[in-house]
Amino acid sequence: MSATTKPEAAAGWKIRGARPEDWPGIWAILEPVIRAGETFTWDRDITEDEARGRWFKQAPGQTFVAVDAGPDDGDGGGAGGRGGGDRTEGAVLGTGELHPNQGGGGSHVANAGYMVHPAQAGRGLARALCAYSLEAARDAGFRAMQFNAVVESNVRAVAAWKSMGFEVLATIPEAFNHPELGYVGLHVMYRKL
Amino acid sequence: MSATTKPEAAAGWKIRGARPEDWPGIWAILEPVIRAGETFTWDRDITEDEARGRWFKQAPGQTFVAVDAGPDDGDGGGAGGRGGGDRTEGAVLGTGELHPNQGGGGSHVANAGYMVHPAQAGRGLARALCAYSLEAARDAGFRAMQFNAVVESNVRAVAAWKSMGFEVLATIPEAFNHPELGYVGLHVMYRKL
Repeated sequence: MSATTKPEAAAGWKIRGARPEDWPGIWAILEPVIRAGETFTWDRDITEDEARGRWFKQAPGQTFVAVDAGPDDGDGGGAGGRGGGDRTEGAVLGTGELHPNQGGGGSHVANAGYMVHPAQAGRGLARALCAYSLEAARDAGFRAMQFNAVVESNVRAVAAWKSMGFEVLATIPEAFNHPELGYVGLHVMYRKL
Repeated sequence: MSATTKPEAAAGWKIRGARPEDWPGIWAILEPVIRAGETFTWDRDITEDEARGRWFKQAPGQTFVAVDAGPDDGDGGGAGGRGGGDRTEGAVLGTGELHPNQGGGGSHVANAGYMVHPAQAGRGLARALCAYSLEAARDAGFRAMQFNAVVESNVRAVAAWKSMGFEVLATIPEAFNHPELGYVGLHVMYRKL
């Protein structure tokens, strides 16, 4: 974890494996992001059941959540929403998943995805989820991590993953039809573990 | 179709949409390739049912076969196996599928896969299947085609796709564990439609 990412205790969250009962909190974060269609290459009209089946991964993959660590987190005075005064201990603030990017001879390279509650933006949570996934992937025996489709216009995400050691190996031209920007590229990003 | 690819009639095959009853012929081609694990990033121990579910695509994707055009094909004197004297009209000589490479904003880029019976190698069938998929993808409204994982050591395939207008946008280092060669790269290949 880099020097600019707050340790979990100071940041006020705890990252752990997701449980079935976390789903409503996860879906509350996923749904608006998927419906907006600006950063994720999922069908925007996916049903909740399909999304749950897709987000919850089986071993060697896994799904995890960042939950609010409660009032003792030392960071209760942040911006509004779940970052601010209405925080609830155990509330899902962000989520991530990792899984093999390919099968067979390609199964030693992991892929991962993350989503963060808008109220948590700018607090380092996406980077913390990424760091968690890198460690978890390493522990599960993966040798590298690859993102297949990072939307070029999602500059904050691109910068975050670069700061976590990923490099852009290629940009697939005009591979993403952004609802407002039109056709933009999709980055293939990669780092060894 | 390029000048070096034989027209279907001369080549002795016909490419058409796959039907459920084509499956045994398709599986006879897929299974040894999957079990060998040298060119496809599918789990080598996949069951036949899983493979069928994965190979048969729903619209806007599709699955197709090249079948033997029968004794009037003008090419009955080729090499052994199905390329030679024991050819049977309607026998599956090769197969392919195409599907959206991503969902949502990425669904205008197609992905495709092909497999050819070993006895057909060197006759241009893989290229003919690729040409068919390019045309079919164009007709279905896709704007580009991307391959995510072309095994670097599969030099014949890499050369074939290059000759069909694809370029290597990136090579994911050591992303494929070849049973004999060890870790080799996976090419991301791309062309506009």
